[in-house]
Amino acid sequence: MARAYFDWNATAPLRPEAGAAAVAALRVVGNPSSIHAEGRAARRLVEEAREKVADLVAAEPGCVIFTSGGTEANVLALTPMVELDGRNATRERLLASAIEHPSVRSGGRFAPERVEEVPVRADGKVDLAALERRLAVLEREGIAPLVSIMHANNETGVIQPVVEASAIVHAAGGLLHVDAVQSAGRIACDINVLGADLLTLSAHKLGGPKGVGALVRRERRLHFAARVITGGGQERGFRAGTENVAGIAGFGAAAATVHRVFAEEGEYTAALRRRFEVGLKSIAPDAVIFGAEVDRLPNTTLFAVPGVKAETAVIALDLDGMAVSSGAACSSGKVAPSHVLAAMRVATPLAGGAIRVSLGPTTTETEVDSLLGAWIKFTGALHRGGSGIAA
Amino acid sequence: MARAYFDWNATAPLRPEAGAAAVAALRVVGNPSSIHAEGRAARRLVEEAREKVADLVAAEPGCVIFTSGGTEANVLALTPMVELDGRNATRERLLASAIEHPSVRSGGRFAPERVEEVPVRADGKVDLAALERRLAVLEREGIAPLVSIMHANNETGVIQPVVEASAIVHAAGGLLHVDAVQSAGRIACDINVLGADLLTLSAHKLGGPKGVGALVRRERRLHFAARVITGGGQERGFRAGTENVAGIAGFGAAAATVHRVFAEEGEYTAALRRRFEVGLKSIAPDAVIFGAEVDRLPNTTLFAVPGVKAETAVIALDLDGMAVSSGAACSSGKVAPSHVLAAMRVATPLAGGAIRVSLGPTTTETEVDSLLGAWIKFTGALHRGGSGIAA
Repeated sequence: MARAYFDWNATAPLRPEAGAAAVAALRVVGNPSSIHAEGRAARRLVEEAREKVADLVAAEPGCVIFTSGGTEANVLALTPMVELDGRNATRERLLASAIEHPSVRSGGRFAPERVEEVPVRADGKVDLAALERRLAVLEREGIAPLVSIMHANNETGVIQPVVEASAIVHAAGGLLHVDAVQSAGRIACDINVLGADLLTLSAHKLGGPKGVGALVRRERRLHFAARVITGGGQERGFRAGTENVAGIAGFGAAAATVHRVFAEEGEYTAALRRRFEVGLKSIAPDAVIFGAEVDRLPNTTLFAVPGVKAETAVIALDLDGMAVSSGAACSSGKVAPSHVLAAMRVATPLAGGAIRVSLGPTTTETEVDSLLGAWIKFTGALHRGGSGIAA
Repeated sequence: MARAYFDWNATAPLRPEAGAAAVAALRVVGNPSSIHAEGRAARRLVEEAREKVADLVAAEPGCVIFTSGGTEANVLALTPMVELDGRNATRERLLASAIEHPSVRSGGRFAPERVEEVPVRADGKVDLAALERRLAVLEREGIAPLVSIMHANNETGVIQPVVEASAIVHAAGGLLHVDAVQSAGRIACDINVLGADLLTLSAHKLGGPKGVGALVRRERRLHFAARVITGGGQERGFRAGTENVAGIAGFGAAAATVHRVFAEEGEYTAALRRRFEVGLKSIAPDAVIFGAEVDRLPNTTLFAVPGVKAETAVIALDLDGMAVSSGAACSSGKVAPSHVLAAMRVATPLAGGAIRVSLGPTTTETEVDSLLGAWIKFTGALHRGGSGIAA
């Protein structure tokens, strides 16, 4: 049976350019730290990829720190020991939005009692008024925090007001970390325009290999006194360990590709998404599309139909050849209520029905139509009293 | 010009089986944390690789924690918050041998003042008598430390008395971490025989991809309360972040291959090494081979010829198509005196001439003879008063 993949926010299929670069790099003998020709060849691949990843977010190549993925980049970013030159202040507080990825919500290297949550509005956007009020209080206490707000949410696709947040955070003497794992390669993601001091990227969300990411600094003078992986001078001392050369080369190639095509691909997936959402609403007029009233990533729909459980739907659709997800790819295999929808104050029964459909540049109209057909089949079986699974 | 690669201890060329597995895995869509068919296919690759890596060291698959490499595995292992069930004692001290990899010597998550060095004898082996004396003193103070001793040294290839160390450490209530990055796939490396509580592996040293490794626990009850990369339930909660599926698949394939062929390959490289060392001694009778009087990895020669600087030799040989190294692949690009030879109390001028030749299963007699020829050419040029570089 032909399968159709609608879970690009969990991981995107490898782009051909990324595959070719990774495969070529696998064949390159040599440790990038070795000074002989073999070592230099491996080093060259890493540095070429660094330039491409930097270009994607308009950063300096020297400000890109390769990591094993977005999670490690987030943990690296979130430390009280982050300094701008001349200022040795330890960041005594981390303010993270309520809809961040678990690796941000867990607070990185901040003690749990030093982590605060920034609330989110019902439309799925971070509550900037609440952030501003809290920063004012902290400023009076002499605390200039690190603030972490994602560029676009992985579940709803809602694009966050990062530019505005940056102005507010900087006015209060804070630093801003932006997890751009879902946005980079899908919408414009210029670190200077966003005003992010630190930006997290993940290769596999934009068509590179799994297991590689980056933390990007906006300015060279931004410095971490505390690293995560120590015991080697790689990545200008920010991250020890022999580089994942093939993964990094694949990341670079994927970054170069998305940098060129993201606008066009965004228009394409937006049209497909429109087709899906219009179709869904005509099949299930009571379907709720979360975040629909604000700007979202062009590829993401998070929806629920009252009375339909997400778990049942995901399993039934999977058996019918359709890969969709119930919110985020759940690292533990457990199905837990979405913290994103909880933060948006969506009622638990409705949140329990949330299904994420995320599209990509190789998704087709035919696939979208098949998904709508599968949904009709599944809900029809449900209404006939079955589980929908055997349908 | 044909190149010959003699730096297998810095990184080994990718084995064909590992390349095939990594390339196949790159094409597998799906996040291992997703529950649909695509996710399960990716999960299967990770779990199959886990079994192969576990087999290599005779561990349980559930005791293998995949990491981004040996360095991360070492940092993960070296925490005061490591416990055996029923004992909640924090390890108040780390004893690490003086010849460990920088990621061990830097002490992981131990405060610098809690890290002690275990001395090494002139022959390159850890001084067990000194270890035993120090453990006795600590035992009287009620301190049961974590001890870290590598299985084989990366520079000299000297195989360490891990089995004996394990008995001593356990008798004193300590736990033993063994960095087996250089030994696994080259000599027998059974976690139970070694008596290691924790064992570090790196894929790229045994013919897998760069950027993946593992920390292996001997027993499931061994538990870390403090992790390095947090914010996701992957790797049974020991290590967050989407798995490097292609890297892990390549690691598994390489592990399965070396498990089958390491003994045969060891005989082969040992014969080649003999050829090299005999040849070297006949060309340069004053050559010193470090650790020659004790057991070494079959593929490694670290030598110095009085009056020949390592840096000059490495560059001249590189220009002549021969990749050798001056000790470890230096992560910072800086040339620093070897801490390993310093620990063995080798005089600085001689240590400054240390050149490492490390062989592998695809090294040929012809290549070894070419290296000897290149050495003659280089030293001849030196003796004629040149730098040896233009020769």
